[in-house]
Amino acid sequence: MYQLFFSPGACSLASHITLREAGLPFELKRLKFAEGQQRSPDYLKVNPKGRVPALVTPEGTITETPAILFYIAQIAPDKKLAPLDNPFELARLQAFNSFIASTVHVAHAHGPRGSRWATEPTSLEDMRRKVPETMRDSFRLIEQDLTGDFVMGDRFTIADPYLFTMSSWLKDDAVEISEFPRVKAHFERMQARDAVREALAAEAAG
Amino acid sequence: MYQLFFSPGACSLASHITLREAGLPFELKRLKFAEGQQRSPDYLKVNPKGRVPALVTPEGTITETPAILFYIAQIAPDKKLAPLDNPFELARLQAFNSFIASTVHVAHAHGPRGSRWATEPTSLEDMRRKVPETMRDSFRLIEQDLTGDFVMGDRFTIADPYLFTMSSWLKDDAVEISEFPRVKAHFERMQARDAVREALAAEAAG
Repeated sequence: MYQLFFSPGACSLASHITLREAGLPFELKRLKFAEGQQRSPDYLKVNPKGRVPALVTPEGTITETPAILFYIAQIAPDKKLAPLDNPFELARLQAFNSFIASTVHVAHAHGPRGSRWATEPTSLEDMRRKVPETMRDSFRLIEQDLTGDFVMGDRFTIADPYLFTMSSWLKDDAVEISEFPRVKAHFERMQARDAVREALAAEAAG
Repeated sequence: MYQLFFSPGACSLASHITLREAGLPFELKRLKFAEGQQRSPDYLKVNPKGRVPALVTPEGTITETPAILFYIAQIAPDKKLAPLDNPFELARLQAFNSFIASTVHVAHAHGPRGSRWATEPTSLEDMRRKVPETMRDSFRLIEQDLTGDFVMGDRFTIADPYLFTMSSWLKDDAVEISEFPRVKAHFERMQARDAVREALAAEAAG
């Protein structure tokens, strides 16, 4: 049994969907960000970084979405959630997920969480104004490369729930997903999957 | 033969050191950031993101440091640069590298490259002022976990050149490495390795 610490709609959604796609047994552990539970002493024992997601496994806790996603792909190899036997294709997949983590998620975070990197209200407002531009720059690159049904082409992989999660943030970032037709089609394709529907329902259930 | 596009002292140093540790044949391709070569049409054909590193392989180009590092570990398995057969240990390693890419490198970048996320000079100055604090927060977490000679304990892995590269930035970020004794010892241990000495000399050679 695994435990996934999450906050509804946060980037932990990618790991949540992937656990369902892998068919692994897991328990959801919700953190109420509004109450600061991610900074509580109890949670800091689970993840000293005070962030979600954190996946508690029988061997210990894993943090950081790209690491959690790849772990799930490895322990459920029959589901073929990553090209585990092809170092170059796997590197392409890891590069995509790393780009999401270090560029796309970071671009988005300058809206709601600019105080991580600056202090003055005028700076935070300046950062918020720039988010639509940096998100568009990121999604322009993603759109160019999205030539198949899924990030890696014909086959669903751990990159798809991660892209789906970023796409779901575009509206809050004042970017119309329809500016990126392939991303929009990917988003709708993902919304139709059982694992995605179940994950969204479970996170909304409170 | 591989080609590594790099800029001296940039995060590409981690991939450069790792190529040497792996004993792979490679050619260094320097980009002059001061002349904007990373945004040149020729380089954008190699990496549309306009960033370093980019590793050109016989199968295609790989970007993003965590992906390049893991690729090198996979194609030189005899060097044991990652725990390839242990999903949990590998996840710990990937989590570390993902934290470097999405938190530590991003914290640092708010000094020299704040204009990625804001526009006004006052905002960029505000961001620069906060860099020592965010780098300290990151390195406090790294220091806590650094209980062996290397990031993963007793064995050198692809996490070590990445940490070394971040540690080398601390001085520019107005943080004394001696605030973090284990990180300092790791930095000095790394400086003594042939691959590190050779990489630094090659990048300095112009």
